[in-house]
Amino acid sequence: MKILVINCGSSSLKFQLIDSDSEAVICKGLCERIGIEGSQIVYTPTGKDKITKVEPMPDHNRAIELVIEALTNSENGVVSLDEIGAVGHRIVHGGEKFTKSVVIDDEVIKAIEDVSDLAPLHNPANLIGIRACQKVMPGVPMVAVFDTAFHQTMPQEAYLYGLPYSYYEKYGIRRYGFHGTSHSFVSKRAAEILGKNPADLKMIVCHLGNGASLSAVDGGKCVDTSMGLTPLEGLIMGTRTGDIDPSVVEFVMKKENSTVADVTNLLNKKSGVFGLSDNLSSDFRDLEAGYNEGHAGARRAVDAFVYRVVKYIGSYTAAMGGVDVICFTAGVGENSGFVRKLICDRLGFIGAKMDAEANKVRGEEKVISTADSKVTLLVVPTNEELAIARDTYALCK
Amino acid sequence: MKILVINCGSSSLKFQLIDSDSEAVICKGLCERIGIEGSQIVYTPTGKDKITKVEPMPDHNRAIELVIEALTNSENGVVSLDEIGAVGHRIVHGGEKFTKSVVIDDEVIKAIEDVSDLAPLHNPANLIGIRACQKVMPGVPMVAVFDTAFHQTMPQEAYLYGLPYSYYEKYGIRRYGFHGTSHSFVSKRAAEILGKNPADLKMIVCHLGNGASLSAVDGGKCVDTSMGLTPLEGLIMGTRTGDIDPSVVEFVMKKENSTVADVTNLLNKKSGVFGLSDNLSSDFRDLEAGYNEGHAGARRAVDAFVYRVVKYIGSYTAAMGGVDVICFTAGVGENSGFVRKLICDRLGFIGAKMDAEANKVRGEEKVISTADSKVTLLVVPTNEELAIARDTYALCK
Repeated sequence: MKILVINCGSSSLKFQLIDSDSEAVICKGLCERIGIEGSQIVYTPTGKDKITKVEPMPDHNRAIELVIEALTNSENGVVSLDEIGAVGHRIVHGGEKFTKSVVIDDEVIKAIEDVSDLAPLHNPANLIGIRACQKVMPGVPMVAVFDTAFHQTMPQEAYLYGLPYSYYEKYGIRRYGFHGTSHSFVSKRAAEILGKNPADLKMIVCHLGNGASLSAVDGGKCVDTSMGLTPLEGLIMGTRTGDIDPSVVEFVMKKENSTVADVTNLLNKKSGVFGLSDNLSSDFRDLEAGYNEGHAGARRAVDAFVYRVVKYIGSYTAAMGGVDVICFTAGVGENSGFVRKLICDRLGFIGAKMDAEANKVRGEEKVISTADSKVTLLVVPTNEELAIARDTYALCK
Repeated sequence: MKILVINCGSSSLKFQLIDSDSEAVICKGLCERIGIEGSQIVYTPTGKDKITKVEPMPDHNRAIELVIEALTNSENGVVSLDEIGAVGHRIVHGGEKFTKSVVIDDEVIKAIEDVSDLAPLHNPANLIGIRACQKVMPGVPMVAVFDTAFHQTMPQEAYLYGLPYSYYEKYGIRRYGFHGTSHSFVSKRAAEILGKNPADLKMIVCHLGNGASLSAVDGGKCVDTSMGLTPLEGLIMGTRTGDIDPSVVEFVMKKENSTVADVTNLLNKKSGVFGLSDNLSSDFRDLEAGYNEGHAGARRAVDAFVYRVVKYIGSYTAAMGGVDVICFTAGVGENSGFVRKLICDRLGFIGAKMDAEANKVRGEEKVISTADSKVTLLVVPTNEELAIARDTYALCK
């Protein structure tokens, strides 16, 4: 079956067409600037050249039409419309209702709407993508795959904040966690690579990209994760603060005579390693170069980033009462031997030893610990689209 | 020398008179409701009955006069005025300027004023206490002992938040940490008890009271601590949230149509184990009773509190690359074998083993780990007043 995977943002739409049998990507692409002047679709049928078409896209319906057109046109299409057997949608927030992927029906759409206040930028955009597909591809089954679902196994002690309990009951304020599709995919794949049963492993997954989160996976189940009510909490990220004293919000508002929305924007868009490095970059390739050239901002940002990751690894080791495997994934985790080395050099306290030669790997599955390391260190490239396609196939086959 | 130790709040003033030779408390007491109707001074000369005097106290000058009168009156006074050789003041926030205690002069007063925006409730009250003593006891040397000073050895990677660096430079937004006098006192005393050089120990101090914080003390120097810009960050406390997603501030403001000041009040005064337990209590004696009776709120609050402490112990073990000694202090840490057991039962991952019999101790110095424990677990009662008296004596003798 051919599965169309859709990741729909407020003005963009990423897609991949995946063959569920071979798990090969048949075509992937992106619609940009939907509803904005200068919109275009850019896509690459596997093995062919990239195609860019500047086309007006007043709304997501038109974007989906163009995706279908791109996939099925007689000139460079890769599939006929009736071959697309199902659509898998990435949904950012499933609240507490969704603990796994589900076939989309009216009730599911209603439930995604119901938790939109928890992800006001993302869930409405995800819903637009679902409705556009319903319109353009009526009758094709669709599946919702939630960023939060994998983390729903967390125990209460891990997901409750030290707030009045009524705020959890009334408003749903708790730790949800995100990147769940990635944490799930990587933790399962790591067990496969090692030839172990996930039930027998205590694992920490370090999803280090522009957004970054860690999860503690004990016996295949998530028991804690660093993102919280929103994706702002936890690690220092590309442009997000991660953990800060919550008093900072009011403090900055007073100092700058600004609104809470201004401060939220500051904490999400102008902070992280970007802000710490004096706006040098949010990209770790630039930060690595700056670090090696002795750029004070780059050093400060990388050191603080690494230190935070190391502290979380310690805290999740404590949470699980030990750790067997630490996985690195996502842009930085898969590709930056530099960042991995800085992290792993500080993990001697759990008996982890990195193999410097093995650590030269980029974007490939590889054990990067020495044979006598007490903890297995592992690079596992993530593949959220494939995970979505798999869940979609499993529910629609 | 007799040292008067003053801890001055906005409407209260705690005092102790300590003999620097014997380190004995000669008298201790409290002025309550300063500037409010119904003010009174309550004090206890050591070995005598408690004395309560209802007296109008329009300001802190009058409170200090009453303290001096209580200490020196011919009927039940304990000292003559000229025997009071020095005054030690607890100052909450020393910013980055004060890395240790200092003799108070005009420059020091100015510097304490300069960082008052970092502790707007506390530093102005502390300054009122200093000025009242200057007026009532002119010529007596005074020393400022800062809650933040011990933590000033933290490296940049531990004290910087993932904010734009300019916010640290412009506004001083960083982790400062509090309870420093206690963390310093307890870590030094722990080394003495164990007959070790502090330089040879990696130590975690768990100051668990109504306010609660952990510190990582490596070789006698603080390298990290859980409170931050303000005392709100870190552990779940009596009524304070500790760590939460900073987005919670805006989320609650929107949900309740409230101001940021309302939310700050909520996070500081109505949260923590009090809020989590559905307002059962902020007192761990009540929570322990509730826990044992199966009260859902008590269980939830205690479990979340303990889990957070365990995670911090893991994270500081990672930060220091190991841990030799874990100290418990302050109200809960010194007295609650129940809470200590719940915490230590989860520290097997670092080879810590509690001695259940030894753990029955309350408020006494005691090793509570087994002989074969890889980490020494220790109860060390804190004594901030004595620490202030010692620093004051050292600078004024």
